[in-house]
Amino acid sequence: MTGQGQLGSLTLGIVGLGLIGASIAAGLKKRFAHIHITGCDQSTDILLQAQQLQLIDAGYQNPAELCQHCELIVLAVPVLSTQPVLAALAPALQKNPTALTDVGSVKGVVADAAQQVFGHMPSWFIPGHPIAGSEFSGLSAADPDLFCQHAVILTPDQHSSTQTLELLYELWQALGAQVTTMPIQHHDEVLAGTSHLPHLLSYALVDCLANGSDQYEMFEYAAGGFRDFTRIAASDPDMWHDISLSNAEAILTVLERYQRQLESVKTAIQQRDGVTLKAMFQRAKRGRDYVAEQLSKRRGHFK
Amino acid sequence: MTGQGQLGSLTLGIVGLGLIGASIAAGLKKRFAHIHITGCDQSTDILLQAQQLQLIDAGYQNPAELCQHCELIVLAVPVLSTQPVLAALAPALQKNPTALTDVGSVKGVVADAAQQVFGHMPSWFIPGHPIAGSEFSGLSAADPDLFCQHAVILTPDQHSSTQTLELLYELWQALGAQVTTMPIQHHDEVLAGTSHLPHLLSYALVDCLANGSDQYEMFEYAAGGFRDFTRIAASDPDMWHDISLSNAEAILTVLERYQRQLESVKTAIQQRDGVTLKAMFQRAKRGRDYVAEQLSKRRGHFK
Repeated sequence: MTGQGQLGSLTLGIVGLGLIGASIAAGLKKRFAHIHITGCDQSTDILLQAQQLQLIDAGYQNPAELCQHCELIVLAVPVLSTQPVLAALAPALQKNPTALTDVGSVKGVVADAAQQVFGHMPSWFIPGHPIAGSEFSGLSAADPDLFCQHAVILTPDQHSSTQTLELLYELWQALGAQVTTMPIQHHDEVLAGTSHLPHLLSYALVDCLANGSDQYEMFEYAAGGFRDFTRIAASDPDMWHDISLSNAEAILTVLERYQRQLESVKTAIQQRDGVTLKAMFQRAKRGRDYVAEQLSKRRGHFK
Repeated sequence: MTGQGQLGSLTLGIVGLGLIGASIAAGLKKRFAHIHITGCDQSTDILLQAQQLQLIDAGYQNPAELCQHCELIVLAVPVLSTQPVLAALAPALQKNPTALTDVGSVKGVVADAAQQVFGHMPSWFIPGHPIAGSEFSGLSAADPDLFCQHAVILTPDQHSSTQTLELLYELWQALGAQVTTMPIQHHDEVLAGTSHLPHLLSYALVDCLANGSDQYEMFEYAAGGFRDFTRIAASDPDMWHDISLSNAEAILTVLERYQRQLESVKTAIQQRDGVTLKAMFQRAKRGRDYVAEQLSKRRGHFK
């Protein structure tokens, strides 16, 4: 694919060259021969590596320097770093507004950060969230096809610039993603269930078993189900620290719902109530099978 | 590989041609040209299919008929069916003792079934459990390599026949498995943590989300982590009904430990206690990474 829209001749800035930032750079460099990418990272080692891997054409430690050079900036930092990074970018952005997005897993906290820094959500800033990731983190795990056939949620509001929105559609579609939009609060509620809660459950399970009397023997006899179930417990603790605190209310709502569900599982087992258990297993299996089938049809990769 | 031990010239009986029973048949037929396998299943359709696929050489609906023909019998039925199947086999077995094993995920209930039917655990019956499976079930999911590089736990006691134990080692090692032994109660405690609890957590999560107000939209934006986490919720509800009831006490112990863990996660989020959360995520990640590395070294397939 060669860039036919604005993207191929654009100068793009990426703040944060972790898994997501570096994968965006790798994906664009793979698809557009002439795109110019500037990167920003606190670590000079990472900047150097990114240049050596030809993921970026220029690197800066200070995000403010990006603004002088870029027509689109992507923030790919842990969500709680959004506000300080926005504050560092603000003087240059307010002088010369540049299309801006982010990739954080929580969107309410990003809107709050914009509110704090700019007093409102600027029309040229449309938060986003690629629903893709890996238990591996950092630049070394960068994958140019990480977003292929994955959903990307953008959260524009009524003041958002149509031009910025079109550019972001172009960006993510070029990377193979399926772009959709939804309100910020709804995003955070949905993701609390499908992503944030499962990560917490997986971390809690591994921690619970690893601290039990059997310790690592517990893992010795783990089959595929356990392996799959606990893979996400290898995810980046810093990132999940930020997510847990940033989306606390929505997570607590779904966590409490889950705790009630577990309590009824416990009661059913205590009462040897096989009917209730089997009904739950059957409902869950039907739900999982239905969704796997639907998504497999649409994306060809759910199973 | 050609059978050099007893196995290649043996007549083996398999009761229950679901995923595990049919995969044993498929694996042995692939590896031993002259092995004779008789199958038993309640369904004549399944027996016919198994014969057409050349997984079995003869099929019976009545397990008692197997005993006249077999030198080793493998019970591959849902664990709560163990007792009725043993009762059906008992008259023939007591006349002509035959090496016997099973593949159930819970071993205490199998020992209880033997106690009920025979008054004791016969020396020629050594329960077993291959730690392998799939979210797919039934004959059509049979895989001759399902057990390759997977653990198989046998639970002999001090009265077990050495000859039977050797035969079972030969059987499972021929199928590529890594065989180990442990006491029945310990097996049930370990598996409650590594297998039974994760399945219940996954079923509960899918049921909890599928019944929420967002219903299937919840699944629409599910990334790989959620997909992996919920894969086991597509497992066979009948099988997991039996497991939940058969290993109730050990499951309740580890479920309650997990509920306490979740309660402390909830408290940490309520109090926005990032230090506690990050410490838990880091411990879990270290544990998961360590175990993945160890098992990957040993088996080459954990990640």
